[in-house]
Amino acid sequence: MLLEQTNQLTYQVTGTGVNLLTNLKSFGMEVSLLTSLPDNHVGKAAASDIRKYGIQDDFIYFNQHHHIGSYFVELGYGIRPTVVTYQNRLASAFCQANPESYHLEAAVMANDIIHICGITLLLNEKTRTTALELADYANRLGKKLYFDFNYRPSLNTEHSHEFIKAQYEKILYKADVVFGGIRDIKELLDISVNQEKSYGSQLEEGIQILKQKYGVKTYVGTSRNDRDGKHMISGFMDGESFKMSQEWPVEIYDRIGAGDAYAAGIIYGLNQETWSEEEVLEFATCNAVLAHTIPGDVPYTNVEEVQSLMNGERQTLIR
Amino acid sequence: MLLEQTNQLTYQVTGTGVNLLTNLKSFGMEVSLLTSLPDNHVGKAAASDIRKYGIQDDFIYFNQHHHIGSYFVELGYGIRPTVVTYQNRLASAFCQANPESYHLEAAVMANDIIHICGITLLLNEKTRTTALELADYANRLGKKLYFDFNYRPSLNTEHSHEFIKAQYEKILYKADVVFGGIRDIKELLDISVNQEKSYGSQLEEGIQILKQKYGVKTYVGTSRNDRDGKHMISGFMDGESFKMSQEWPVEIYDRIGAGDAYAAGIIYGLNQETWSEEEVLEFATCNAVLAHTIPGDVPYTNVEEVQSLMNGERQTLIR
Amino acid sequence: MLLEQTNQLTYQVTGTGVNLLTNLKSFGMEVSLLTSLPDNHVGKAAASDIRKYGIQDDFIYFNQHHHIGSYFVELGYGIRPTVVTYQNRLASAFCQANPESYHLEAAVMANDIIHICGITLLLNEKTRTTALELADYANRLGKKLYFDFNYRPSLNTEHSHEFIKAQYEKILYKADVVFGGIRDIKELLDISVNQEKSYGSQLEEGIQILKQKYGVKTYVGTSRNDRDGKHMISGFMDGESFKMSQEWPVEIYDRIGAGDAYAAGIIYGLNQETWSEEEVLEFATCNAVLAHTIPGDVPYTNVEEVQSLMNGERQTLIR
Amino acid sequence: MLLEQTNQLTYQVTGTGVNLLTNLKSFGMEVSLLTSLPDNHVGKAAASDIRKYGIQDDFIYFNQHHHIGSYFVELGYGIRPTVVTYQNRLASAFCQANPESYHLEAAVMANDIIHICGITLLLNEKTRTTALELADYANRLGKKLYFDFNYRPSLNTEHSHEFIKAQYEKILYKADVVFGGIRDIKELLDISVNQEKSYGSQLEEGIQILKQKYGVKTYVGTSRNDRDGKHMISGFMDGESFKMSQEWPVEIYDRIGAGDAYAAGIIYGLNQETWSEEEVLEFATCNAVLAHTIPGDVPYTNVEEVQSLMNGERQTLIR
Amino acid sequence: MLLEQTNQLTYQVTGTGVNLLTNLKSFGMEVSLLTSLPDNHVGKAAASDIRKYGIQDDFIYFNQHHHIGSYFVELGYGIRPTVVTYQNRLASAFCQANPESYHLEAAVMANDIIHICGITLLLNEKTRTTALELADYANRLGKKLYFDFNYRPSLNTEHSHEFIKAQYEKILYKADVVFGGIRDIKELLDISVNQEKSYGSQLEEGIQILKQKYGVKTYVGTSRNDRDGKHMISGFMDGESFKMSQEWPVEIYDRIGAGDAYAAGIIYGLNQETWSEEEVLEFATCNAVLAHTIPGDVPYTNVEEVQSLMNGERQTLIR
Amino acid sequence: MLLEQTNQLTYQVTGTGVNLLTNLKSFGMEVSLLTSLPDNHVGKAAASDIRKYGIQDDFIYFNQHHHIGSYFVELGYGIRPTVVTYQNRLASAFCQANPESYHLEAAVMANDIIHICGITLLLNEKTRTTALELADYANRLGKKLYFDFNYRPSLNTEHSHEFIKAQYEKILYKADVVFGGIRDIKELLDISVNQEKSYGSQLEEGIQILKQKYGVKTYVGTSRNDRDGKHMISGFMDGESFKMSQEWPVEIYDRIGAGDAYAAGIIYGLNQETWSEEEVLEFATCNAVLAHTIPGDVPYTNVEEVQSLMNGERQTLIR
Repeated sequence: MLLEQTNQLTYQVTGTGVNLLTNLKSFGMEVSLLTSLPDNHVGKAAASDIRKYGIQDDFIYFNQHHHIGSYFVELGYGIRPTVVTYQNRLASAFCQANPESYHLEAAVMANDIIHICGITLLLNEKTRTTALELADYANRLGKKLYFDFNYRPSLNTEHSHEFIKAQYEKILYKADVVFGGIRDIKELLDISVNQEKSYGSQLEEGIQILKQKYGVKTYVGTSRNDRDGKHMISGFMDGESFKMSQEWPVEIYDRIGAGDAYAAGIIYGLNQETWSEEEVLEFATCNAVLAHTIPGDVPYTNVEEVQSLMNGERQTLIR
Repeated sequence: MLLEQTNQLTYQVTGTGVNLLTNLKSFGMEVSLLTSLPDNHVGKAAASDIRKYGIQDDFIYFNQHHHIGSYFVELGYGIRPTVVTYQNRLASAFCQANPESYHLEAAVMANDIIHICGITLLLNEKTRTTALELADYANRLGKKLYFDFNYRPSLNTEHSHEFIKAQYEKILYKADVVFGGIRDIKELLDISVNQEKSYGSQLEEGIQILKQKYGVKTYVGTSRNDRDGKHMISGFMDGESFKMSQEWPVEIYDRIGAGDAYAAGIIYGLNQETWSEEEVLEFATCNAVLAHTIPGDVPYTNVEEVQSLMNGERQTLIR
Repeated sequence: MLLEQTNQLTYQVTGTGVNLLTNLKSFGMEVSLLTSLPDNHVGKAAASDIRKYGIQDDFIYFNQHHHIGSYFVELGYGIRPTVVTYQNRLASAFCQANPESYHLEAAVMANDIIHICGITLLLNEKTRTTALELADYANRLGKKLYFDFNYRPSLNTEHSHEFIKAQYEKILYKADVVFGGIRDIKELLDISVNQEKSYGSQLEEGIQILKQKYGVKTYVGTSRNDRDGKHMISGFMDGESFKMSQEWPVEIYDRIGAGDAYAAGIIYGLNQETWSEEEVLEFATCNAVLAHTIPGDVPYTNVEEVQSLMNGERQTLIR
Repeated sequence: MLLEQTNQLTYQVTGTGVNLLTNLKSFGMEVSLLTSLPDNHVGKAAASDIRKYGIQDDFIYFNQHHHIGSYFVELGYGIRPTVVTYQNRLASAFCQANPESYHLEAAVMANDIIHICGITLLLNEKTRTTALELADYANRLGKKLYFDFNYRPSLNTEHSHEFIKAQYEKILYKADVVFGGIRDIKELLDISVNQEKSYGSQLEEGIQILKQKYGVKTYVGTSRNDRDGKHMISGFMDGESFKMSQEWPVEIYDRIGAGDAYAAGIIYGLNQETWSEEEVLEFATCNAVLAHTIPGDVPYTNVEEVQSLMNGERQTLIR
Repeated sequence: MLLEQTNQLTYQVTGTGVNLLTNLKSFGMEVSLLTSLPDNHVGKAAASDIRKYGIQDDFIYFNQHHHIGSYFVELGYGIRPTVVTYQNRLASAFCQANPESYHLEAAVMANDIIHICGITLLLNEKTRTTALELADYANRLGKKLYFDFNYRPSLNTEHSHEFIKAQYEKILYKADVVFGGIRDIKELLDISVNQEKSYGSQLEEGIQILKQKYGVKTYVGTSRNDRDGKHMISGFMDGESFKMSQEWPVEIYDRIGAGDAYAAGIIYGLNQETWSEEEVLEFATCNAVLAHTIPGDVPYTNVEEVQSLMNGERQTLIR
Repeated sequence: MLLEQTNQLTYQVTGTGVNLLTNLKSFGMEVSLLTSLPDNHVGKAAASDIRKYGIQDDFIYFNQHHHIGSYFVELGYGIRPTVVTYQNRLASAFCQANPESYHLEAAVMANDIIHICGITLLLNEKTRTTALELADYANRLGKKLYFDFNYRPSLNTEHSHEFIKAQYEKILYKADVVFGGIRDIKELLDISVNQEKSYGSQLEEGIQILKQKYGVKTYVGTSRNDRDGKHMISGFMDGESFKMSQEWPVEIYDRIGAGDAYAAGIIYGLNQETWSEEEVLEFATCNAVLAHTIPGDVPYTNVEEVQSLMNGERQTLIR
């Protein structure tokens, strides 16, 4: 339904952090979210849903800013794309929270992996400071730092290229595993690669330079293509070496959250001792494929379902 | 859901005029609907929805006939067709409105283009008289007259072939742009073409005869085919010369209203000074393709979305 | 919700016959409906729901008139009344059914009680003929004939007073038990009573005259009053003698169908061998009280619930 | 349902202006709204709904601020109050619209009455400037200026008392008809009255001073009381002289919008040539009583319904 | 929607018997269900829905066991399978009903065909006894006995292979037409076939042995395959001789009930005097194809729709 | 809606423990639930909702019994009572859980108050053993034991009076605070009181005997009455001395869960150091009054709302 066609909305508490953590919890990891919510009925209801997802609420804070960031989704179908309309984010309790209102050190100490979404770098000074302090603590306390570019030019038109690049570079120097694309490498970080080579070669070359410059250990991401009227997705990873997953056809029920599902697959996979990087990559890609078939942004997949898809099982009914 | 499966209905104020005008408004044109509604809560709610679509209500009349034409739609899926069950139309405020209850001359004067749906020619004497008088005013006041056959044999079993043909001919002599198919030409108007030629050639030949006989300037329509398990649609137009659009695969969410979307695309396109007939045709066909993906009968597409499809952009998500 | 506020409708197959029979079935009687429905998906779905209510479908006929009578209900609240907007009824399969399309004699033979709603007398010649023939068969085959005035002036503006009165008189001469009010006696049948007496005395006097003139055995009905901001209902009955029930306060969830519930209570009660007329009257009134608290037109009450109310039990929760 | 209990929301485009204008339109007046909406799908959908209410959209502007003010309502029941949780308003397209982006003079010229809601005085500099300029134009162009205090201390904690008072005074000097309460007189405007007198006398005294000081012609408002477990409402008006309406019991389905309904009743009534002030007051109060029984904020009442209540008719069902 | 995503459930009274009988009724046969339901509101509502489907309720019994078997369905999409979670069945009124509580002989006498679902053989001693007595009566009274293996290993882990096989054999000796697959032949009945031959040859060989051993006249079933990313279904039948239907691509809206639709197609087809076995097989397969496109478990198809698909008509809209 | 009227259900994870703990959490206490759920999608969804309520899931266990206890609620209105239809409970994961599958000692150690619902004493041997062991641990580890009779004769028809009494006595000897009524005292525990005295005096006398015999410190409960067509509720408590709360009128939206709200009010109140018993009693009663106005079984009230009601504030709208 389009917004003009109905006065019934289905709402879901969501966001890249919530999506990723819910998926990791569903894979069996213990997860915790650091954020701020308004101290009113809307904020309380949001916290309830976050707990429902299995996310620990120890580092969720409530403050007097009464707003929560929200957006409207009109789900696409076939060749009609999904349309997302954002409402004000900057007035949100999250954006207005002072860095000192968090127990950042305690939060980092209580977890083994810290994952930061790049959107926080550009929202405002407060979220940026919080993100960078969090990264600092991660480095100082010897925790793994995962970072996702999540850079959307259309949502960030107020800052100069140089400013944006500088913020991303600050955190890249601290990060272990980075989620991004080729656009982030070439356009955001100004890394130049041989434009005449294939997409794969450019990617490999760019990642190589990025890893050396910033000391990043692993760089991962996805590619999307349309082939014979089908939407295809594949993943790439450069940890020990550069590799790409097979290309999977995607049937889209709900496109949002698939990128978070991919990241969750990578995080989970990299923390499985016996998995090769190839397995991790295939697992994450299959998880993203499955996430496209799930209504809503939050990817409710589990390990068994993903592996069943990886193994080529094609079930239509499970009793 | 089938009718037997639920007691929850979603209702939409619709009809070929409403669909077409809403789409034109969404393209940026000012539009007005001439119709009659019952002077009760149902009629008032219908007028509200018509205003909601952006259609001017200056020529909407209310009368004492308390009925509104309605139908039930059970949406199809895959190989299962959508089923439409009509309720009584003839008792409706629209069908029972006297031609003199309208300000026809004022309505024609207030608009640049007059579009008449052929269904009105066969409903009853009142709607037929209104339609023909409207066409007269359009000619006398020098306004462009668009006419859509919209002829469905299954809904018109009470009149003789000769009677039906005579009514259509009356209006064809006054029309500038006509929407129809090859069946209308061959079976309704008894225009004979070389049956041994291809579909395209028969169509071209038939249109040629029709244009000469009735003085119609442009004849447009669509063809549908199933190819490799896919439903395909293409448009044709004969204004300056005969041409056909490329064939587009169609994913159907809701089939109803796609023909009205095609007509809206043609009307909008023909009124764009800089567009070639080829562009108009491709625009209208793409608009029909998009309309199939929209729930409900009313095609909520805009120019940007249609052109993005024309240009081969394949987006899954717009933020 | 008002019609202008939503595009979601809940639909229910209903009508005075359906309401009354469903209630009688729920009381434990076997019931059958004689009617006609359109031979399409809408008619089939209606028949499904009628069977669902437990009503035998042996005398439900399908014909080629594709319309079904319908109305929209906007439920009231507190001092805001419920508003019913009727759509066309005369084009319905029921109104257009020829009397000879029914097996009237078989239908009467298969049942012990025949109940006719007065609305059929004024819809059109076809429904009137069917109703009168049915009454004839009931008399000839020795079945009890129940008749409900159900006369609503606002829905019957096309006939003269004399015509209407004549039709009602035809059937009153054949009826055993009649449902009506004081307005039917005084205004429709022109029976004059002493206007200076109380409402109760006028009613008693009027019924006395009616019973003698037409040979009716029992006349029953309800009165409504507002007292101290409360809506009150009471029933009256004149079989062996004239009596009125106690006055019951009514909390209204859905007003429609309460009259049918009262009639069902009377019919059921008169067929219980051991019940006094007082008990029948109190049972029917309590049934109407309960029916006001049930969503939708169809009164889903059972004997145990009604008697629990009669006995003054005030339960808030049954496990 | 409480927010924690559901993920289904019903949304309605609303606000004091929308509520009041919809009601006036439903009474038969032509109405127009001056506001700004975001130029995106959410803003377009809002404009659609505003048109649906019958409000002219000539003075609705779209700008690049992508936010729309919104709030969540958890409807109360019995002794449980309705709870409203506001989201950010200041980032809204309305609050961020520059005064010069409107055609204020044209808007005032096109209408006979200008109604301004006091909330705009305190939101920010832009809305305040727009409101005051609008009032200026109304005075200069000889249009009636209606003004509603609508002052809610809990939503205005950032300004000093003196600042707030100063803004209200600016507009009071220009206003003809003012909607407010006794609190506005005593606490906001610092008008001192004899505290030992009754509520009614204090009100009369306070209004007298206010009218003389600012040159206001008519001051109107409502009082609420709980009596015997019932919620009661009455209206007061001081135009020619001070008078109070009778006290009406209120059954609450949805409390929001009742104040706007009262204002609409006053505006409509004051513009009926033949109505006395007593009639106007009773009409407005009854309209507010009815508005409490309607789901949603927008009061869909019409003149006939209000007068039926005024006349003591107590209908439960209208067919 | 997944169970974790919503608190709104759509419920449907269903089960292999209900699905099959509803479909047969829709094909034009008179059908009756023998079962037991709880004597409470849930059981009564279930009986209402069964009547709604057009199934006679003469052999539906109510008993004091207050439970009804139920399951939750999370509908799949694309590569994500539908997941069914069963709740307790053994406590149900159906499983706890004593065989002597039914009028089995009367039920068999009142029908021409008796169809038994194999699930009843393994639920408990009571349902098994009832099933076997029913089969006995069918043989003794000369009625055709149809039997469906419906064997799901995952739901039957408590019995030994030998026990299960013995129960199935008891009924196979009495059955005329049997629905099953190759797994039932090879694994459940331990019939050995040449494993080196193709699937079709093994099937043909296995059925031959089964028919001879148990005296079964006809053995029918379906095969499913994934080919080129499409889900395919075909049927097989061995009555006069072994034959397979063409392979049909399947678009899945709701997978559940398709097997029952296939069985209904076979039963209906075998009872059409003029149909060849080939026609029966194609009809049943097309019916299963259509059933996949219908929401809910109950296959609401009719003869005309199935034959239209068989004949290769590809309609998108029926008016 | 009644069950026969709809196929849409709203489901809520509920039960006396869940209701009480959610309410306590909302009052600000940390709470934990000891229970068992099925290890499938239904059990996982239930656990999600329990977390959503803010209840710790450390002592929630999953086992292989795939059933969860459930019931259907048809909400009453006015004089029509709410009807609850229970489905099978004994097959549930909770009832089938072995006492040794819990870490009872750890659970008791981790909490300050242990609350046991009397229903567990009669379900089966397993739940009874678990309840009694839990009570033992509470005594041994010096934790306060709260116990709620929750005895419903209609749900416990299989045990003898002596057996039931014996089970309750076992736990009464260990309990500190007991929730019950006069029926529990007189009929379940066979405590005889002077029947000629008033209800209040009998209650006081009975509690006195109970407290002495079993060593219970505090006995609390509620009384319900209908007075002048209003449903009234009051609480009683005998800790330091016997006292009764004032009688409050109750408007019922949803009756279920009000008893749990009363218990939550008592538990919270008894743990507030500065509250007198009178305050505790009034707080709990007001909480129960509020709980009647909340949809669903779970009472989402907070301290501020309850105290506002206690203080006689009558708000209709909170912004």
